[in-house]
Amino acid sequence: MKRTAMMGQLNEKHAGQTVTLQGWINRRRDLGGLIFIELRDRSGLVQVQVEPDSAAFAEADKLRGEYVAEIEGIYQMRPEAQRKGGAADFEVIASRVKVLNAAKTPAFELDKGDSVAEDIRLKFRYLDLRRPEMQRNLMLRSKAVASVTRFLDAEGFIAVETPMLTKSTPEGARDFLVPSRLNPGEFYALPQSPQLFKQLLMIAGFDRYYQLARCFRDEDLRADRQPDFTQLDMELSFVEQEDVLELQERLLAAVFRDVLDVELPLPFPRLSYFEAMDKYGSDKPDLRFDSAFVDVTDLFAGGAFQAFASAGSVKVIAAPELTRKQIDELERVAKQHGAKGLAWLKRDGDGFTGGISKFVGDQAAELMSRTGVAAGGTLLFAAGDWQKAVTALGAVRLALRDLFGLAAGGQFHVSWVTEFPQLEYDEDNARWTYMHHPFTAPHLDDIGLFGTERQGEIRAQAYDLVLNGFEIGGGSIRIHDPAVQEKMFAAIGFTPEEAHAQFGFFLDALAAGTPPHGGIAWGFDRLLMVMAGAQSIREVIAFPKNNRGADLMALAPAAVDAAQLAEVGVQVAARVEVE
Amino acid sequence: MKRTAMMGQLNEKHAGQTVTLQGWINRRRDLGGLIFIELRDRSGLVQVQVEPDSAAFAEADKLRGEYVAEIEGIYQMRPEAQRKGGAADFEVIASRVKVLNAAKTPAFELDKGDSVAEDIRLKFRYLDLRRPEMQRNLMLRSKAVASVTRFLDAEGFIAVETPMLTKSTPEGARDFLVPSRLNPGEFYALPQSPQLFKQLLMIAGFDRYYQLARCFRDEDLRADRQPDFTQLDMELSFVEQEDVLELQERLLAAVFRDVLDVELPLPFPRLSYFEAMDKYGSDKPDLRFDSAFVDVTDLFAGGAFQAFASAGSVKVIAAPELTRKQIDELERVAKQHGAKGLAWLKRDGDGFTGGISKFVGDQAAELMSRTGVAAGGTLLFAAGDWQKAVTALGAVRLALRDLFGLAAGGQFHVSWVTEFPQLEYDEDNARWTYMHHPFTAPHLDDIGLFGTERQGEIRAQAYDLVLNGFEIGGGSIRIHDPAVQEKMFAAIGFTPEEAHAQFGFFLDALAAGTPPHGGIAWGFDRLLMVMAGAQSIREVIAFPKNNRGADLMALAPAAVDAAQLAEVGVQVAARVEVE
Repeated sequence: MKRTAMMGQLNEKHAGQTVTLQGWINRRRDLGGLIFIELRDRSGLVQVQVEPDSAAFAEADKLRGEYVAEIEGIYQMRPEAQRKGGAADFEVIASRVKVLNAAKTPAFELDKGDSVAEDIRLKFRYLDLRRPEMQRNLMLRSKAVASVTRFLDAEGFIAVETPMLTKSTPEGARDFLVPSRLNPGEFYALPQSPQLFKQLLMIAGFDRYYQLARCFRDEDLRADRQPDFTQLDMELSFVEQEDVLELQERLLAAVFRDVLDVELPLPFPRLSYFEAMDKYGSDKPDLRFDSAFVDVTDLFAGGAFQAFASAGSVKVIAAPELTRKQIDELERVAKQHGAKGLAWLKRDGDGFTGGISKFVGDQAAELMSRTGVAAGGTLLFAAGDWQKAVTALGAVRLALRDLFGLAAGGQFHVSWVTEFPQLEYDEDNARWTYMHHPFTAPHLDDIGLFGTERQGEIRAQAYDLVLNGFEIGGGSIRIHDPAVQEKMFAAIGFTPEEAHAQFGFFLDALAAGTPPHGGIAWGFDRLLMVMAGAQSIREVIAFPKNNRGADLMALAPAAVDAAQLAEVGVQVAARVEVE
Repeated sequence: MKRTAMMGQLNEKHAGQTVTLQGWINRRRDLGGLIFIELRDRSGLVQVQVEPDSAAFAEADKLRGEYVAEIEGIYQMRPEAQRKGGAADFEVIASRVKVLNAAKTPAFELDKGDSVAEDIRLKFRYLDLRRPEMQRNLMLRSKAVASVTRFLDAEGFIAVETPMLTKSTPEGARDFLVPSRLNPGEFYALPQSPQLFKQLLMIAGFDRYYQLARCFRDEDLRADRQPDFTQLDMELSFVEQEDVLELQERLLAAVFRDVLDVELPLPFPRLSYFEAMDKYGSDKPDLRFDSAFVDVTDLFAGGAFQAFASAGSVKVIAAPELTRKQIDELERVAKQHGAKGLAWLKRDGDGFTGGISKFVGDQAAELMSRTGVAAGGTLLFAAGDWQKAVTALGAVRLALRDLFGLAAGGQFHVSWVTEFPQLEYDEDNARWTYMHHPFTAPHLDDIGLFGTERQGEIRAQAYDLVLNGFEIGGGSIRIHDPAVQEKMFAAIGFTPEEAHAQFGFFLDALAAGTPPHGGIAWGFDRLLMVMAGAQSIREVIAFPKNNRGADLMALAPAAVDAAQLAEVGVQVAARVEVE
């Protein structure tokens, strides 16, 4: 017996017809001798009415919540008084009911899923996934997969799967290791990203590559992270940065159009890393609202307010009227992000009161003009060295967003951040290191700076894709010239021998005829999280781990037999090392 | 500087135009003062001519094999005498040449790749992948991915990614294990297949699911296997076997059409497991040729030839004329596959000579009529219990195929094998076990046989998809009734406690409202291997492992730092255990 349609496909064309439906009992109510059933599938709900004298009644009376049933009946309009427009105006008068499967009482009520502890939702994920929110999220994700595949296939990209069992490299995040039974004492690593392999595919001449790549990082899971995650990974040959950006813009626009029916305005605005930090205090600024910082270093330089007088940078952000309590809370945020304090002023007529107002004299008019602060509004200041000042004020800016709802839900703002520094100085280890990865190409104009005192000024041909304050993609043009690669390794303190020991096969490949190339990887989970309006990537992953890396449903990880371990040549290390 | 087109996109419309091309130097020849270059990209080759007095000459003279270059020039027809029709009738007269990257002399000559040892090809895979055969194979594969995605998306399938870090289950093949740093002493397993998760997705109401799933089995790699491989995994709710088969036929036909421009005739022929074994001696018969076995048990029953007289089965296959040496070789094959010998007869006029002809009297005419053996042709016999006789003769049938080229290259024959036994008796362990997996549904008519002496006769609702003698897919309708699942576990000797210990969460899910469902998984690597006409799945995988599980290019697996091991809480076990 086949179903006539899924619930969501039923429409006025079916009116008056006998239909066969299959799904779950979403709800059962008994009223006036009749049984009313909501039958559910992934596409929607249909109301079914079973009359007491009908042949269907006895079987219908067995139905409980989450039972699986097949129901045959006439699809018809409800009585006029009950119509509200739309699909809910129709109901099915059952002529036959068949229980396809019983169900035990669910561990939690599906329509109260939002208020259920996440651990319970994860343990009974097969129930949790029945909730319309989760069904919608995973359907969005599937649409995005189809959209991406369609677009990239049409653009001449080749889908290639790169190895899942590969080699551990000491740089980067911590690897997950896999003991090799056939090679005792040796280990595979699960890939952190297909970076080297996708560059090898360019060297091999595949020209354009993509993959929805499963990636692994053994990081602490405090934040919204998963040990395995999905990257939309791409690489293109014979391109410059502009080509990559233009294609990404069309791709993301296609995904938004196909999945959400939203048109993203093109081209996406671009900010340099410096601009993003200087105006918004973040390399992934949320630009759904402006609230850019204003520089007022010059207004306070050498003045009476000691903290500002000699600061490298004094930045100010204009906020609405704030209570003293709100200011205290924002100061706490600023301090969490490295500021010593959060100076403030309240606009009062043509002057300022409160906070540091006693230090503001002549500067008042200029402050007002530069910031455009509204009557009653507040100015919040961070001062110190540039990096610290903007970072702290960036955190304040986001706190203001959350406090005043400055970024409306359902709104999407995409931008590029470009011109990242090629190198950054690692204070802890007193050495230069790469900011993206060691294969990122520097700006051609800056190559002469390698090995000089100014190598911190080298700009990378790197770009991040930012959506609503989340980094949803990052990439770069790669080094294709072995001589530049050598300079880069030297800049981060690798001897040629060390470089060879770590990346030997890749350096050999680089010398084998490498085309100019570049690419990008999207954080697919995070993109979908933002598109779905969800608060965590766990909401767009079917079977996620909790923040201890555990699958609470399948009960993984778990202890394994000693025999199994012996076969792969490892043993559990003693917990406490006595030495 | 952008390229005008890829090589394979150039056509008569470009004639007379200035084009900019980018690619690899496939070949350079110097002739009569001119330089002739073949420029290559993944789409094809273009011949470039550089004249000695041209501005391009000095730079062109730097070019060597596998250099990357940009070439600008006029695309024009060759002199009439050199035309042969097609794209090769055109050439580019270079006006500008730019070396984009140099290349060291390749480790092997690409156009001799076929004769290079596979280890060398794997070590320098980035060169090997430049060969047109490998480029074509991976492009076929990519087309298949796009085709599958397009088809399944249009059919309402939802792409879902299932966990890569999951739980080890003692049944099935050996797991790859991943130590958990956050849960010391515990291990994840890499998934052997998404079987339980895809059933959970049906229980969760997703209705139709697919995934190109990376799967892992730690098996010995003697045969043509990879430790990680790709499965096209699907599952459907509210279906019966017929629905699954019909959809798979349309899907495979779409893939062949999109990828190879080949129309597969629908519907695919179906054989029961019994028929396949009885007529072809294989549960994945190569049906590109017939050569079905003929049963002649009755003709020899109780006769003079002892070996046949009391045999459970006597099967015969008709072969072309064979030399004595060929017969000896085929007998070796039969013995390798469990036969005691390979009896034979040669047709000579209206009778038989050679082999066991002295035992053939009255049966000659009937033998000839049943087998249709041609004049001069040979009959080959296997006798014994049915399973052994057909298995041995099945191997002989394939040897005849290879000997006489019975299955032409480029020919594709797809069929279904159905009605596999639900249970098989494991002689070694003297117990019943499942043939597919313990979640496969039995035929409804056969459920009464569970727990009886006849439970070996229970037919599974299982089906294999067979292409040219390779199993390219296998699946089943699943058990959705917890009571049937209990019977199944009991039949294979699991107590309820054991079943719960191994599959507890899944059994709980099964009782939570499970729709009727079924699915299939395609061996995607093997399918592509057959479609590409390749001899090994390594030819359709970008970066495969060798038969020691090693990546010869990236040098994985490898030893890792003691500190890294300590972090994940394991240590390498002593090689020799003294106990």
